[in-house]
Amino acid sequence: MFKDLTVEEFLQNLGEGSATPGGGTAAAISGAMGASLISMFCRVTAGRKKYAEIKGEMEKIASEVDKWREKLIKLADEDSNSYIEVMNAFKLPKDTEEEKSIRAEKIEVASQRATEVPFETAIVILPILEKVSSLANKGNPNAISDLKVGLELCHTGFIGAISNVEINLPTLNDKEFSREIKEKMMEAQVRAQKAVDEGRESIFNIFEQY
Amino acid sequence: MFKDLTVEEFLQNLGEGSATPGGGTAAAISGAMGASLISMFCRVTAGRKKYAEIKGEMEKIASEVDKWREKLIKLADEDSNSYIEVMNAFKLPKDTEEEKSIRAEKIEVASQRATEVPFETAIVILPILEKVSSLANKGNPNAISDLKVGLELCHTGFIGAISNVEINLPTLNDKEFSREIKEKMMEAQVRAQKAVDEGRESIFNIFEQY
Repeated sequence: MFKDLTVEEFLQNLGEGSATPGGGTAAAISGAMGASLISMFCRVTAGRKKYAEIKGEMEKIASEVDKWREKLIKLADEDSNSYIEVMNAFKLPKDTEEEKSIRAEKIEVASQRATEVPFETAIVILPILEKVSSLANKGNPNAISDLKVGLELCHTGFIGAISNVEINLPTLNDKEFSREIKEKMMEAQVRAQKAVDEGRESIFNIFEQY
Repeated sequence: MFKDLTVEEFLQNLGEGSATPGGGTAAAISGAMGASLISMFCRVTAGRKKYAEIKGEMEKIASEVDKWREKLIKLADEDSNSYIEVMNAFKLPKDTEEEKSIRAEKIEVASQRATEVPFETAIVILPILEKVSSLANKGNPNAISDLKVGLELCHTGFIGAISNVEINLPTLNDKEFSREIKEKMMEAQVRAQKAVDEGRESIFNIFEQY
């Protein structure tokens, strides 16, 4: 699992010329790294006497975001695994009509999964993005640059995951499945953009006062 | 060093309530992760017969980007270390006038270094950003989503690093030093925005044809 590699090994693996790990895995790790910084922001706030009133709330959000981070770390692996399944399906024999039909079915199933995984990544990141604006407004301004990097990493994770959905959609035969994912994806994109815009604005205002 | 931690340990460290590692370190790792994906894109292109004509060029760019990645991994550590130095300087005694003066001097020197490190991070990421548009136009379109995530991670690394420069600048006493960094930073921001806009446009066009 990627989480057990050292940071250096992971970055080396990512840079190699093999198809996995690739952008989908990196997007999930980007979201996880953003989640870490957002938890850190909550904890750096909770640890200060000045913020005693919101200590409980900050600790609760930090734990919640930690759980999403763990989910994203799992999705980083699932992304690579699902893509390996697609490549394996393409290698199946296609000499007889029966083989051709089995192969086509396996490719479709694997490709659907390889589309669902980055979609799940995006969906896990979404509620993290939606926490940022309110955190910026009430948390410790001394750590505002950590929150900013956290927001941008989650945003990159979100749009990276969506790109991986987009690149897989045209390869699918099940048009009903594609249509459903596409619809949900567009809803998620609207919500994410709103959260990012509001988060950036709140953070910008804190920087201005700094 | 962060590169020797596992990915999971690194993410845990980042999420804790201590001041380091924080956004500056995450920004450098984001840039490193983006660099890896851009190297991967070059190698996935170089490995295909169809791109035999640009194989040498792609391998050369991949090696160059690998070197910048190594530099970014070092800067991730330096960022945390420089911030620890600032915190240590603040802990120095301030009972006598002499102690006060030594402490103020050490805080200034450490804070300048804590400003220079994220500035260097941004400067290392800049030429990587500037490679993307041309890579998108000539490389293997099957890996375009990897290049896209690479670009976005490098961009997040760049703006994350710049935020860390911005948050440190007002704390410095040496106004000449601040002015110089600010001037160079603004130049770098203009170049980075141009590179990101062009990179996004080229990638968008490849997605449209896909």
